[in-house]
Amino acid sequence: MKGINYFQPFSVDINLMKGIMDAPDNRVVRTASSMRGHYADESALEKIIREQGDPIHYEVFEKIMPQEYGHLCFGISRLQPGLVGEECFMTKGHYHSILETAEIYLCLGGEGYLVMKTQNGDCAVEYMKSGRLVYVPPCWAHRSVNTGEEELILLFIYPAEAGHNYGDIEKEGFPKRIFKRAGKVVIE
Amino acid sequence: MKGINYFQPFSVDINLMKGIMDAPDNRVVRTASSMRGHYADESALEKIIREQGDPIHYEVFEKIMPQEYGHLCFGISRLQPGLVGEECFMTKGHYHSILETAEIYLCLGGEGYLVMKTQNGDCAVEYMKSGRLVYVPPCWAHRSVNTGEEELILLFIYPAEAGHNYGDIEKEGFPKRIFKRAGKVVIE
Repeated sequence: MKGINYFQPFSVDINLMKGIMDAPDNRVVRTASSMRGHYADESALEKIIREQGDPIHYEVFEKIMPQEYGHLCFGISRLQPGLVGEECFMTKGHYHSILETAEIYLCLGGEGYLVMKTQNGDCAVEYMKSGRLVYVPPCWAHRSVNTGEEELILLFIYPAEAGHNYGDIEKEGFPKRIFKRAGKVVIE
Repeated sequence: MKGINYFQPFSVDINLMKGIMDAPDNRVVRTASSMRGHYADESALEKIIREQGDPIHYEVFEKIMPQEYGHLCFGISRLQPGLVGEECFMTKGHYHSILETAEIYLCLGGEGYLVMKTQNGDCAVEYMKSGRLVYVPPCWAHRSVNTGEEELILLFIYPAEAGHNYGDIEKEGFPKRIFKRAGKVVIE
């Protein structure tokens, strides 16, 4: 076993109440304009981009890990509350490039749904609130949707080799959308 | 894609403050007698077994997942506080059967250390308290040690095919032990 270059253990602090991870290696920012093509009401999205200066839609804070079999990737996503027309703010959603890999989401704050879909059209929706862990099995595309008044904060963990495939689900779309009408959440 | 038998998404509630997972599928209980051979002071362990009726040392609550590539296993471990002689209560520790698989531990309560070791003798120790996430890279055996006065509560996540190998590390032993002497934690 001499000569093996072992990856060194490390630790990172997460404020479980505030959903903040110390010292992320990488911050991904998605502004409203990066969400073009995802919402039912395109003109409402353009209005937000125009009038609010292309505000942050969601952020992902992550540790950079070797994208190799056996490792795990993890980080925190923070999705803003709000509506595009009547549709709740959401993430783009993705399949994993290696399709048959799962992902675990642990909700640390806020309220919302994980919307999931397989390539044969099955759809599933899981509610999220603080402390709820959602298991996204292998082969399910997944997107988070914020139906609350606060940021939706999720800790995510997935096999490091999984990769992200945004293209296929962008073409397919998810079978369900989540709206807020007169203060009530409606899943269609 | 027709005909694929997709594993269904699900969710489970975790009380992040109390470290309790709802509706586990399986509960593993390790009593003091199951820890024979692990502590430096064997007679002190026998005294605990004899005088305290073989008390629970630690418990693991887990969901039963397919032990297949792409899935993730998760659950919660609760390690009691206490001393065997001067040595802090700890878990057996294990390598993964598929050695090159990582594990993530998120501490939800208590205080302690994760002690880790590779097959070429490298040793690492990471401190844990609530909110600290420890990354155990591929190929590191790992054991948790409770140095506090409360239960040490850990949420764990690892690739579902990893498996557990308790035998090799039991033969090798960990290079470091953690004691409490006059109220102070000592790592030797």
